[in-house]
Amino acid sequence: MSVQTFELLILGSSAATPTSSRNPTAQLLNIAERFFLIDCGEGTQIQMRRYKTRFQSVNHIFISHLHGDHFLGLPGFLASMHLLGRKNELTIYGPKELEEVISVIHKYSDTYLSYPLRFVATQAEHKELLWEDDKVEVYSFPLQHRIRTTGFLFREKPLPRNIDKYKLEKLEVSFSEIHKLKKGMDAVDNHGNTIRNEELTFDPPPPRSYAFCSDTRFFEGLAESIAGVDLLYHEATFLEDRIDRAAVTFHSTASQAAQMAALANAKHLLLGHFSARYTELDDFLNEARPVFQNVSLATEGRTITL
Amino acid sequence: MSVQTFELLILGSSAATPTSSRNPTAQLLNIAERFFLIDCGEGTQIQMRRYKTRFQSVNHIFISHLHGDHFLGLPGFLASMHLLGRKNELTIYGPKELEEVISVIHKYSDTYLSYPLRFVATQAEHKELLWEDDKVEVYSFPLQHRIRTTGFLFREKPLPRNIDKYKLEKLEVSFSEIHKLKKGMDAVDNHGNTIRNEELTFDPPPPRSYAFCSDTRFFEGLAESIAGVDLLYHEATFLEDRIDRAAVTFHSTASQAAQMAALANAKHLLLGHFSARYTELDDFLNEARPVFQNVSLATEGRTITL
Repeated sequence: MSVQTFELLILGSSAATPTSSRNPTAQLLNIAERFFLIDCGEGTQIQMRRYKTRFQSVNHIFISHLHGDHFLGLPGFLASMHLLGRKNELTIYGPKELEEVISVIHKYSDTYLSYPLRFVATQAEHKELLWEDDKVEVYSFPLQHRIRTTGFLFREKPLPRNIDKYKLEKLEVSFSEIHKLKKGMDAVDNHGNTIRNEELTFDPPPPRSYAFCSDTRFFEGLAESIAGVDLLYHEATFLEDRIDRAAVTFHSTASQAAQMAALANAKHLLLGHFSARYTELDDFLNEARPVFQNVSLATEGRTITL
Repeated sequence: MSVQTFELLILGSSAATPTSSRNPTAQLLNIAERFFLIDCGEGTQIQMRRYKTRFQSVNHIFISHLHGDHFLGLPGFLASMHLLGRKNELTIYGPKELEEVISVIHKYSDTYLSYPLRFVATQAEHKELLWEDDKVEVYSFPLQHRIRTTGFLFREKPLPRNIDKYKLEKLEVSFSEIHKLKKGMDAVDNHGNTIRNEELTFDPPPPRSYAFCSDTRFFEGLAESIAGVDLLYHEATFLEDRIDRAAVTFHSTASQAAQMAALANAKHLLLGHFSARYTELDDFLNEARPVFQNVSLATEGRTITL
């Protein structure tokens, strides 16, 4: 049974104001060797070097919204890819105004990229399929923040059925029948008899999924967009002591993030986007756990493997 | 004798592509508690936190040109000052297009700063006084790079003459004469006799100066703009093995930077803006020293006190 990679690397965990140990939001997701950069706060390219990630493997960048701490690392990242001689197309998914921001910077810095750069505008009205190939699909969905903001959902496509090779030999079914079996079809043995698929295969692991929710106030409707997700990243800018501040700024508390994980029936919750006012991050876990047990912190350098 | 502060902190030493240990260009200069930020590459605010600098003390930012590695830390820096509640005016000196870049970013991120932000456009035609107060003056001067670029010269104004208090008492000159003496005027003693300034004072330390030259190709005319400077920062993107590449990209080699220091009769040379291709920075010193002896490296966290 070959299991494909599904791995998230946290590059930044801070809210708008970075600290000496916390960088603005950025994450690198690897699903089956497709590398997705999710948000790109200032210093993302430096963090990627620090964690020795494969810079040029990123073909898709997803930007949730245009607050600086979520995209200001993008121009430098694009420039470095150019300086390192990238040739492959790169696609950026984000608010439509992002293209103008990048264009203005490129115009005045007299920059002509060595590779094709494509923009796909997101909207925050309804859930939408942004990209897919044979193994992965990516959706955007609405969040509720001070400016237009989307979350992103990354999901494996159903894996092919696993073949029981021992049974294949025992029941005298030729290896040439495997492609039919993987699709769920029945097979024919070497004597012309039909053998039912269930006799020769077993279920593949269920498709895994990751949802990225930053930044947003708590609203129940979000749960539907991310229902049943294996791993949920949800911003927790504040603790409950600042719930008023969270309301005014359209952010969430650790407790609210935990409520959303419970509502959405997520399997694991990752908290991030911590306000610089908090130095003791364990308080976020302590606040979330009574509401949702399986929770951890999205701190710099942490890798979560599904 | 009170000597005022003249201290430079290096925040970034890398050329366009940062490395895991080298950040893009930024420096913080403190002359008599005036704090000048010089260039502001991506990650500058994070570097300033790392080195525990006084963020809000910066009232003047000087941007040499609009290549990303020299200004892409600016939007985040401005936003953090806002989020930390700054009220004092901040002035940015740089190419006129910088105002448009910042405005576009602020427009789409729906940012309204808590403090007045003023832009002063620089030109690269001739040397120009950009700012002065009673203690310091700052000039821009032309560099020769692929896009419009200026260097900056920071100079103390002449310090007042130092009073010899022992002689003052001995020659029976009242303390009320001090303000005249400091300006170089003669004094009158308690008996109405004129006492010549030289008898009561001695020379103050000579005004100190710092010139920042990034990025530029080597051209002899530059020497005049920075003649006699105490400390010269000059980019050295390449070693002589890449002198062809330096010519094409309008950058300098370590040897050329040393030639400029010699031509300009500088007292000390600081090399920076190292290409990511070089891991062994001592090679820059070894190349520069035969041409100009008093040279060192502008590496991250280094403080140079004049």
